[in-house]
Amino acid sequence: MGKTAITPTRTEDYPEWYQQVVSAAELAETTAVRGCMVIKPWGYAVWEAMQQDLDRRFKATGHVNAYFPLLIPLSHLEKEAEHVEGFAKECAVVTHHRLKADGAGGLTPDGKLEEPYVIRPTSETIIGATYAKWVQSHRDLPILINQWANVMRWEMRTRLFLRTSEFLWQEGHTAHATKAEAIAETSQMLDVYAEFAEDFLALPVIKGEKTANERFPGALSTFTIEAMMQDRKALQSGTSHFLGQNFAKAANIQFTNREGSVEYAWTTSWGVSTRLIGGLIMTHSDDDGLVLPPNVAPQHAVIIPIYRNDDERSAVMAYCESTAKALTEQHYNGNAVRVHIDNRDMRGGEKNWHWVKKGVPLRLEIGPRDIANDAMMVSRRDQMSQGKQAVARNELINTISVTLADIHHHLFQRAQAYLEQHSCELDNLEEFDAYFTPEKSNKPEIHAGFAYCHAIDDQRLDSYLKALKVTARCIPLDQEKTSGKCIFTGETVKQRIIFAKAY
Amino acid sequence: MGKTAITPTRTEDYPEWYQQVVSAAELAETTAVRGCMVIKPWGYAVWEAMQQDLDRRFKATGHVNAYFPLLIPLSHLEKEAEHVEGFAKECAVVTHHRLKADGAGGLTPDGKLEEPYVIRPTSETIIGATYAKWVQSHRDLPILINQWANVMRWEMRTRLFLRTSEFLWQEGHTAHATKAEAIAETSQMLDVYAEFAEDFLALPVIKGEKTANERFPGALSTFTIEAMMQDRKALQSGTSHFLGQNFAKAANIQFTNREGSVEYAWTTSWGVSTRLIGGLIMTHSDDDGLVLPPNVAPQHAVIIPIYRNDDERSAVMAYCESTAKALTEQHYNGNAVRVHIDNRDMRGGEKNWHWVKKGVPLRLEIGPRDIANDAMMVSRRDQMSQGKQAVARNELINTISVTLADIHHHLFQRAQAYLEQHSCELDNLEEFDAYFTPEKSNKPEIHAGFAYCHAIDDQRLDSYLKALKVTARCIPLDQEKTSGKCIFTGETVKQRIIFAKAY
Repeated sequence: MGKTAITPTRTEDYPEWYQQVVSAAELAETTAVRGCMVIKPWGYAVWEAMQQDLDRRFKATGHVNAYFPLLIPLSHLEKEAEHVEGFAKECAVVTHHRLKADGAGGLTPDGKLEEPYVIRPTSETIIGATYAKWVQSHRDLPILINQWANVMRWEMRTRLFLRTSEFLWQEGHTAHATKAEAIAETSQMLDVYAEFAEDFLALPVIKGEKTANERFPGALSTFTIEAMMQDRKALQSGTSHFLGQNFAKAANIQFTNREGSVEYAWTTSWGVSTRLIGGLIMTHSDDDGLVLPPNVAPQHAVIIPIYRNDDERSAVMAYCESTAKALTEQHYNGNAVRVHIDNRDMRGGEKNWHWVKKGVPLRLEIGPRDIANDAMMVSRRDQMSQGKQAVARNELINTISVTLADIHHHLFQRAQAYLEQHSCELDNLEEFDAYFTPEKSNKPEIHAGFAYCHAIDDQRLDSYLKALKVTARCIPLDQEKTSGKCIFTGETVKQRIIFAKAY
Repeated sequence: MGKTAITPTRTEDYPEWYQQVVSAAELAETTAVRGCMVIKPWGYAVWEAMQQDLDRRFKATGHVNAYFPLLIPLSHLEKEAEHVEGFAKECAVVTHHRLKADGAGGLTPDGKLEEPYVIRPTSETIIGATYAKWVQSHRDLPILINQWANVMRWEMRTRLFLRTSEFLWQEGHTAHATKAEAIAETSQMLDVYAEFAEDFLALPVIKGEKTANERFPGALSTFTIEAMMQDRKALQSGTSHFLGQNFAKAANIQFTNREGSVEYAWTTSWGVSTRLIGGLIMTHSDDDGLVLPPNVAPQHAVIIPIYRNDDERSAVMAYCESTAKALTEQHYNGNAVRVHIDNRDMRGGEKNWHWVKKGVPLRLEIGPRDIANDAMMVSRRDQMSQGKQAVARNELINTISVTLADIHHHLFQRAQAYLEQHSCELDNLEEFDAYFTPEKSNKPEIHAGFAYCHAIDDQRLDSYLKALKVTARCIPLDQEKTSGKCIFTGETVKQRIIFAKAY
């Protein structure tokens, strides 16, 4: 084995490998602001690609965007008891509205507010207060709104993208006249997320319902898409909540129905965040750094010109430019192919590894010999072991759309195979214990993935799970519902729950 | 004169007319959070159109997007003295990181932070701290980054879009190796803003440099685009700042130049905000409500089907749908034409006024008689006095791109004529005084516009200006520079300054 571009490797130290991939790809970095990150241009371009595609999907399902205040009055937050319980312990509180000199050359807060504000950890309460003003009649429903925003949760242990105090997300908030409509919306948006994850990010996910313990604070039911990282831990990648009438009652969203009587609206909320970038990294990347599915790659292909002198330079650059132009006239998934010529004054090998670590799907090396053959050396990021292949220029141009589609497909299949390989049904507590305890496992290479077990949805599981640092991820929707005995209590239950270690 | 859709009219009460236009068009509304607004879907769609076009212009000039923290440590803010002076009096301060029960059923701030944070009023200081880490060599420059973000300034007197505590904006932050490059960037971005305002928003603007008094806190020079509202007040609509080495010194952004010596970088910043929506409203709208230039109209055309019974309904709806489909296959300014069929159960007249107040450029009424003629009744929002015109279906489809371009052109010309009509050169203090004092003016209908005067750029003007509630708007760039005597002090100066009342 040669040296890898990232040290340590995934098997040597997975968490540290993750940090090094993020750093080497220049995706994000920490700041002097506790738990808050800078999303660097390469990372932000990935987020922009996600935003654009998600936004299209939201609009295609009838939603519009709007924007609500960053700050939430304490009195709003207090209205839904479970909700405030869920967020009070980790929120940034604004208490003053100006600064004054502190007499020692510095500044100190001044102008104390009568009522403090919280920076939104999520916007159910402030949006609910607004919907209460907008809704009078059943004709005002449904309200189908999404918001792109920053939110803040004062996390104690943070990790770039996966858990940061501030993060970017979208939060959909809808209000409906009937329970059935709100449930259909919750389910529709879960499907939108799952399709986006699989078709756009090449991220295989399992759709399921959260157990009672893992529900969004204040929700009647929470649905999730769960993905498996390469350390076999689960990452909750998107959630869709059926809020029943809880938030409508707290915010007083009432309407007159067709029969003339007044009732509370039924609401939902749903969101995905920059956390998905963490999921993307941990699913596809390898020991040479980031691997990006073509849909989110800021560049689909990078051209690396190779020349030794000025004469060669001008011929090579002309060829590179005409190739780039021809490629950008091709399309992948409705967008023009994105190509960058790396013309920096730097050794070719250094450039090559730069783009390997940045995860660009295709690298094209073009030197005088290649031009003579009207061809170039092509490397696929998802198949590093195959090295470079000589490809004729016309063939490259004519097949680039298909090649990018194939890269997406390959990444998805690889991740799907990994997920399947590390999933199993476990039917007793001894197996369960061994599966999540490496030293007890006889197959350490596949232990601690997704364990599908018959189990109750109940707090009696907590002590077992806590001891193993395992959580109930979800009750998968696509399961053959078979009765079985709860591996913890022996009670008969009708379905399996997925258990896993998780981020 | 018939009754207008908005009460009061512009001449009756301009500020109240503005609020009513915003409300009738469902653009935005106030909230329980002091000075913070909800941007409603129709208003947010206008912002999205602006964002998309600006973002394209930024990228075409070599910029990339990134994201920096919402919170700024006090110690960062304190580093640039003028800057902190400019923002300390109006900023939201985060002092705690959780809430606890207050013993009376409510919540109270808990977990006091060692160092308080300010919610960014602008991001020079936090971005500067990051650039200091990124920049070592001249090879790391230039950095050309833009951020789309929310910011907060604790304004005491707020007005929707024009002045709100929280607003949405973009802020460009660039760092360069030379002064000349930074000045060229400042100037380039001013041009980008001016072209965007005129070509996209149909908003005529004057490019100029701010006087010393009106500069961004900490900048060496601030450039602005100034627009004139229909009450003849100026609206600063975008600014581009040359920051010299001030912020680089404060944040320690140093690099080794080509000669091997260490120097500070030269930085710029530039921004436009949701305030532009206020400018758009006050420039184009009339006594019947909002008028939107086609580029930012969420719908270019609304089709209002007219029928009296179910038989008519099905024929009319089929015709409307095929017309809408044909229209959406046409393009305006690179985008598909946006068409909405308003099929609500409501009187045609009510629908018509709904879309008038929302500012949709074209309204198309289609009833059985129109179908018989293969035509429809077309109303242009920018020419209410012309009423409806019968237009053949094919002609409408074939000319819609041209018609939308004509609407844009007409709005721009109308605003440009207004601006010119209400601009004048004034050469003595008596005229100046009369121009800004309605009761002294002999032409009240054209008083208090943009007064171009020879004047010093100096604090000695302050008392004159304050008494008249007038401000120096800018030193226009496109002026024939003629010497003249300062109307305030009699000193010889080389150029004119524009004075006006302003938002």
